[in-house]
Amino acid sequence: MDQISEPTKERLLYLMRVLDHAGTKLITSGEIEQKTGWSSHTIRKDISFLGGDVGSSMGYNAEILKKAIRSALGLNRKRTFCIVGLGRLGSAYLNFDGYTEEGFELAAGFDSNVNRVEILKSPVPLFPVYKMAEVISRFGIEMALLCVPGNAAQQSAEKLAAAGIKGIVNFAPVVLDLGPDIFVRNAYVVSELRALTVKLPGLL
Amino acid sequence: MDQISEPTKERLLYLMRVLDHAGTKLITSGEIEQKTGWSSHTIRKDISFLGGDVGSSMGYNAEILKKAIRSALGLNRKRTFCIVGLGRLGSAYLNFDGYTEEGFELAAGFDSNVNRVEILKSPVPLFPVYKMAEVISRFGIEMALLCVPGNAAQQSAEKLAAAGIKGIVNFAPVVLDLGPDIFVRNAYVVSELRALTVKLPGLL
Repeated sequence: MDQISEPTKERLLYLMRVLDHAGTKLITSGEIEQKTGWSSHTIRKDISFLGGDVGSSMGYNAEILKKAIRSALGLNRKRTFCIVGLGRLGSAYLNFDGYTEEGFELAAGFDSNVNRVEILKSPVPLFPVYKMAEVISRFGIEMALLCVPGNAAQQSAEKLAAAGIKGIVNFAPVVLDLGPDIFVRNAYVVSELRALTVKLPGLL
Repeated sequence: MDQISEPTKERLLYLMRVLDHAGTKLITSGEIEQKTGWSSHTIRKDISFLGGDVGSSMGYNAEILKKAIRSALGLNRKRTFCIVGLGRLGSAYLNFDGYTEEGFELAAGFDSNVNRVEILKSPVPLFPVYKMAEVISRFGIEMALLCVPGNAAQQSAEKLAAAGIKGIVNFAPVVLDLGPDIFVRNAYVVSELRALTVKLPGLL
């Protein structure tokens, strides 16, 4: 399946979002075009990469189409992740309950504050940071949400990388300096606001 | 300044992140190359759009360079935003204290639960959703962090758009269907995990 190009992957990921709330309905390429802005030619070409029978002349079955994308993108097996840094943001993501239905398993949380680890209410086990390598290896954890303050982010990320983590969603205000084998998605809220700001009208 | 291309804007935004924690130090184009992966030719070309004197042969002064990018991208005047949906995630962002130094002012929070609006501890005034249009207009609010559940996201976004909001950071698991004048950044955590997953090794 590695013939799927990066732009097609990005579009299929976005299409999954569109389908997330479409339920079991039929969705036409015209409707997808309206919601995404892509041409129906592009949409049909992207979907052709999925193979199999994902639709009829009446439209695509949203549930079957989503399943086909999941499979083509390797999202059809369970992926395990952890949360590092259990302040307000980390705690919010700790208690979010939409991971499982999407195939993601939150396995553990870590914080440098042993007290916080002991008293915080959590649906998954929490550990002090010094147990990170052991727990990540034991649970086979592949990814992490990094929710620590900026001044702790690089060090925490290095510990995660050393423990075998392969991907990090980075909520800290820092560009992480890691080896080429670790994938990072930057999700710092101020960066999101900046990126919006440069699109606002009457600006430049 | 609208001759700055979108890719250059994106790189300048990313460069700001690199500079965020560089303090007042000198940073060379070689160091920027190492942290970003861009060629030093690209870096020098991007920086040339900023005009003025941002560096010497010894390297760029990080603080001056950041100020020049801020100005070129229109990030040098205060931008006002609000938070809609004050559950765990919205509350976490409500109490984050890194906005002001970056030129963003959190002006208000909104929630449909009047009780929550009354009892939640907050550094800014909170309002029930039905006051949204009035408050957004009164405070001149331009952007919103949308932290409501998926089933409320489209309706909340439409209310924001009707009230004059121009940009939304969307944390909900829904693709928003809004007019072409509203800019949306999607920041749903499961989408971030999916996007990481498709990059993981040994996958496709």
